[in-house]
Amino acid sequence: MSLDSNADTAHLRETCIEPEAAWRGSFLDVRRDRVALPDGSTAHREYIVHPGAVMIVPLLDDGRLVVERQWRYPLQRAILEFPAGKLEAGEPVLDCAVRELVEETGYRAAEWARAGLLHNAIAYSSEGIEVWFARGLVAGERRLDEGEFLDVFAASADELDAAARSGALTDAKTLIGLLWLQNWRAGRWPLEWHGAPARS
Amino acid sequence: MSLDSNADTAHLRETCIEPEAAWRGSFLDVRRDRVALPDGSTAHREYIVHPGAVMIVPLLDDGRLVVERQWRYPLQRAILEFPAGKLEAGEPVLDCAVRELVEETGYRAAEWARAGLLHNAIAYSSEGIEVWFARGLVAGERRLDEGEFLDVFAASADELDAAARSGALTDAKTLIGLLWLQNWRAGRWPLEWHGAPARS
Repeated sequence: MSLDSNADTAHLRETCIEPEAAWRGSFLDVRRDRVALPDGSTAHREYIVHPGAVMIVPLLDDGRLVVERQWRYPLQRAILEFPAGKLEAGEPVLDCAVRELVEETGYRAAEWARAGLLHNAIAYSSEGIEVWFARGLVAGERRLDEGEFLDVFAASADELDAAARSGALTDAKTLIGLLWLQNWRAGRWPLEWHGAPARS
Repeated sequence: MSLDSNADTAHLRETCIEPEAAWRGSFLDVRRDRVALPDGSTAHREYIVHPGAVMIVPLLDDGRLVVERQWRYPLQRAILEFPAGKLEAGEPVLDCAVRELVEETGYRAAEWARAGLLHNAIAYSSEGIEVWFARGLVAGERRLDEGEFLDVFAASADELDAAARSGALTDAKTLIGLLWLQNWRAGRWPLEWHGAPARS
């Protein structure tokens, strides 16, 4: 059987019969669609419509990485993570990455490389997070959004590796950043580097 | 600065002032709490309360892994992933892992090892997914839930690695399964194996 997720999916496919906007907050857009299942029966699917996001793996010239610690209310704890943020309407992904990196950490990067895409809550969210690497970092002033509080610091790959192994690092996107970092540094998953976008 | 997420978080902490149950479906439990921010201002936090889940990395005796392909309605596509499922109320995590593996794939495992915990949507969900490895697999009959349709097949670690690198594999929990698999096979992140629970 092919690993290509788009091959031969007719026997798995669920089709919308009746879309329903269930609840809308200032951030969450909750849907509850009635769908037809592959055997012709029907069911409801409850999920979040999300604009998408980007995460940055910021590489300092000394080999360390820029990470953050931020309070994540749903988990009632501070979480160690790479910088990340939601796409604004119509915003190109790399522009969002450049913007979030400087807003949250103050750093601007000379070079960028797209690693991949991840889907973090496939059962109930349309969210996709693009993973980008940034290097040639130059420190500057950060500009946090109102109501945004976070620590920024540098950690070595070995420290992050140990934190992942011990359970101190649990954020999914950040763990996948480490997966890319390990494989890129081992020469197995290449990255294609480009200069920063013109107006960043 | 410490990588320990529980250290020194008073300047980051958000405290609930007024909890609000915003919307409840048969699956999603949406909250919109009013919270106090570290500077004393207030904001709302919208999020999903989730019971938690478990993912299984099932190792066949020939070195291949058991994977699934399942339609994920929020993404409007079939997704390649390791077997996984939500915890039932009061269910021990390993019991859930044993149950989901046999229900979705038919396999029972002689040995189990807990790898770690991941938080997959820290901005808007309390979900945590425990990652378990299973080996000594014996095939049997699967027992899908009503309305559940999925393909089960075997893939080599190299095939999954190539799929992750190329972008054909995007599921976050599954990518983190590969992170653990690579590091465990390299002898860097050890796993502690135990026999299957008594009544599985």
